[in-house]
Amino acid sequence: MAERLSAETRKSALAELPGWSETPGREAIGRTFTFRDFNEAFGFMSRAALVAEKSDHHPEWKNVYKTVDVVLATHDAGGVTRLDIDLAKAMNAIARQLGVT
Amino acid sequence: MAERLSAETRKSALAELPGWSETPGREAIGRTFTFRDFNEAFGFMSRAALVAEKSDHHPEWKNVYKTVDVVLATHDAGGVTRLDIDLAKAMNAIARQLGVT
Repeated sequence: MAERLSAETRKSALAELPGWSETPGREAIGRTFTFRDFNEAFGFMSRAALVAEKSDHHPEWKNVYKTVDVVLATHDAGGVTRLDIDLAKAMNAIARQLGVT
Repeated sequence: MAERLSAETRKSALAELPGWSETPGREAIGRTFTFRDFNEAFGFMSRAALVAEKSDHHPEWKNVYKTVDVVLATHDAGGVTRLDIDLAKAMNAIARQLGVT
């Protein structure tokens, strides 16, 4: 099972994840992505869903038109693990291809 | 533009929409769909996204693994319109095909 990252490791991982920050009141990380329209927002979600399903690690996310709010945590580990950092990186890469940095 | 439904019309429309109810504190309607797994939940979202995009009327929705929380309202009209009722019906039809009634 993926191990819960220490606060220090989490902070240094976040430093290399543009746009992501600690989620207030929870041991989790989050980012709001803003795209041009629903087509792009849902296109992002579709690609991220395939990544999530492949690694069997899924986001909590909310979509309202062109925005996608994502929160990542590893329930079983009670915090943030390498799985969350990897999914966050993959999401940033997908968003970057859509012009969102 | 779609017209805001009266409270009475909204209530009678909801009576024919299994699973949907008024959203507390907002003039909107909502339903939580629970599927078997992420594959089905995101499959539902993908089909509903195509319906939403085709009618240019989009949901607010949150997905956590196998659940999808949906809220529908028509921003421009300041409430619930026929567009929301139609999208809710389409979502119920898609969910029904996935065995969720």
